[in-house]
Amino acid sequence: MRFSVKDAKFFKSCVDAIVSLVDEGSFVATKEGLHLRTMDPSQIAMVDFRLPATALDKLDVDEKSSATLNLVDFSKILSRSRAGESLEIVLDEKDAKLQLTFTGSSKRVFKMPLLDSSTAMPKEPNVPFDAQVKIQGGALKSMLQDAGLLSSHVIFDVSEHQFNLEAKGDAGDVKTETMKDSDSLAALDVKKPSRSMYPFDYLNNITKGCPDDAAVNVHLKSDAPIKITYPIGDAQLTYYLAPRVENE
Amino acid sequence: MRFSVKDAKFFKSCVDAIVSLVDEGSFVATKEGLHLRTMDPSQIAMVDFRLPATALDKLDVDEKSSATLNLVDFSKILSRSRAGESLEIVLDEKDAKLQLTFTGSSKRVFKMPLLDSSTAMPKEPNVPFDAQVKIQGGALKSMLQDAGLLSSHVIFDVSEHQFNLEAKGDAGDVKTETMKDSDSLAALDVKKPSRSMYPFDYLNNITKGCPDDAAVNVHLKSDAPIKITYPIGDAQLTYYLAPRVENE
Amino acid sequence: MRFSVKDAKFFKSCVDAIVSLVDEGSFVATKEGLHLRTMDPSQIAMVDFRLPATALDKLDVDEKSSATLNLVDFSKILSRSRAGESLEIVLDEKDAKLQLTFTGSSKRVFKMPLLDSSTAMPKEPNVPFDAQVKIQGGALKSMLQDAGLLSSHVIFDVSEHQFNLEAKGDAGDVKTETMKDSDSLAALDVKKPSRSMYPFDYLNNITKGCPDDAAVNVHLKSDAPIKITYPIGDAQLTYYLAPRVENE
Repeated sequence: MRFSVKDAKFFKSCVDAIVSLVDEGSFVATKEGLHLRTMDPSQIAMVDFRLPATALDKLDVDEKSSATLNLVDFSKILSRSRAGESLEIVLDEKDAKLQLTFTGSSKRVFKMPLLDSSTAMPKEPNVPFDAQVKIQGGALKSMLQDAGLLSSHVIFDVSEHQFNLEAKGDAGDVKTETMKDSDSLAALDVKKPSRSMYPFDYLNNITKGCPDDAAVNVHLKSDAPIKITYPIGDAQLTYYLAPRVENE
Repeated sequence: MRFSVKDAKFFKSCVDAIVSLVDEGSFVATKEGLHLRTMDPSQIAMVDFRLPATALDKLDVDEKSSATLNLVDFSKILSRSRAGESLEIVLDEKDAKLQLTFTGSSKRVFKMPLLDSSTAMPKEPNVPFDAQVKIQGGALKSMLQDAGLLSSHVIFDVSEHQFNLEAKGDAGDVKTETMKDSDSLAALDVKKPSRSMYPFDYLNNITKGCPDDAAVNVHLKSDAPIKITYPIGDAQLTYYLAPRVENE
Repeated sequence: MRFSVKDAKFFKSCVDAIVSLVDEGSFVATKEGLHLRTMDPSQIAMVDFRLPATALDKLDVDEKSSATLNLVDFSKILSRSRAGESLEIVLDEKDAKLQLTFTGSSKRVFKMPLLDSSTAMPKEPNVPFDAQVKIQGGALKSMLQDAGLLSSHVIFDVSEHQFNLEAKGDAGDVKTETMKDSDSLAALDVKKPSRSMYPFDYLNNITKGCPDDAAVNVHLKSDAPIKITYPIGDAQLTYYLAPRVENE
């Protein structure tokens, strides 16, 4: 596996959207591009990341090649990229290292150890969702912050004409109501009204990497996992998060 | 009690000027406006806050109504206000809740529990002050920071032509001298020279909410409480702080 | 000793470049200017600071006068300087105090206690260096951050055409290669290839005060102390740091 990215900062923002949920993961390179899919350690959330070959400056790979990394360290190294530098990433399978070369006024070569790939790539859940909400990233993140102020759990509630977020805690309750014709909603497709509760911390981590102007796709079904999808440039991030059954 | 504010951020800055000194308090609404007066838990400082009805967008109240709140939680919720949103606050006495409704591209309703009003409103101290200093908020805060660098206590010293702040500590001493004709002094009216010491932490909290360009009114008398008054927009904040008898 | 500085913020940045390495030190004033030279508490690093009389607004001194100070407190007081204020520093030997007077819209007088001058001024090491690198401050600091990400120790390696920084740690390795003709190198004079390892924390503290656009002079010799010199305005900072013998 050997690939180059024109914009190291873009690649870092992709890795950060993954590392906010999981500490390690396997990047799989094929002729189609890069792919990573992994469960978080507590097994209640999954992240799926795809970057097509067309978004890469160069991609050399024989069939299929994978590299399992400490993503926290990977993100730290990527954070050292400077403006105007190109980045080449090469898998050195013999030495079990990933080599990152930043080239600018000086040449900087980082090598990080590969981890053992302990687990097979998990399957994507197959949930027959009842509702879909298309909403601006910034609006969704702001609603989640409202809710996170008051509770560790957030209720998503959709009906034909309305998308609500709710949270209840000792310091107070909050309900955010967004009507179907609101500016921040691009679409609200509801086959069946749905209501489900999810942990705030996970929702916060999942949406942390989401650009404010990105179109976020939220798929819902009562007491079922939530699916959240958004793009970062040409990359596509998809998350699943298990519900917490509401007992009030 | 039901009132609306045009500018939720302004209302938050008022609440922050209160919460820097006390964690809970009772807002009393009458036809004249809002009023809060309370002692800090250690009983050495008092804050009095008044917002006239004219500064509110709307105020519905029968005679007199009061709501006792956790001001820390209240400030947190107010901090969620977004640009261009209006805020309506309604007291729901039946459910013992205060309801805050932010209306913008979505509608957000926060409810927070009322606390028991444990204490009667304290009386305002009646001190026959000997001196009055009118000084810019920014200048006063900067002088206090100078003093707080070196000591936990600050001495205010005024004479006919001069306003001094002093502090003495192990790491050094500081004396800030401002002459009557200085740009940062709007007035210096001294019936009798006065000198008194106050705890820095309280002075710092009291002035935290003071806008840099606000005209602060300081009333002094030797070894008596200090009275500090400043406006935030149309709101008026007044503080009293007990002296510490100087023993050097 | 009595001297004035036009720009208190410049003087603070000099003191900060010293205080990042040592907590106390003696300023010696002569007709030539100010001088401070001291070892850090662990005795593995030395800082030498010189500010010529021409860089001061005024300097009154009889032959030689010295003031030993807690530099942390000195820096804190200097940090209270405001834009447009002048600063006069006077040694009050009778009371064993240093007096700092900031004059602007108010007059602020800080007094800090002198410390006992416990030690004689150390001698400057006399190392027959084999190589000299002239590099931009910003570039050197950035390379050091790359290295500090992965290890507590940094290897400097120079050969005729190349200046390398290396670090090896559990999370990965890094090698920064700068060729002689790079924009960030002003000069590379190598009598003999040299390679030596130094603790990152010290290098970080030594370069903390270095302006990004300053020309830094690095003198090297294998397994010998490193000498790092840079100007802050008219002041000259020189540091020595003992090597750590590389055992890999």
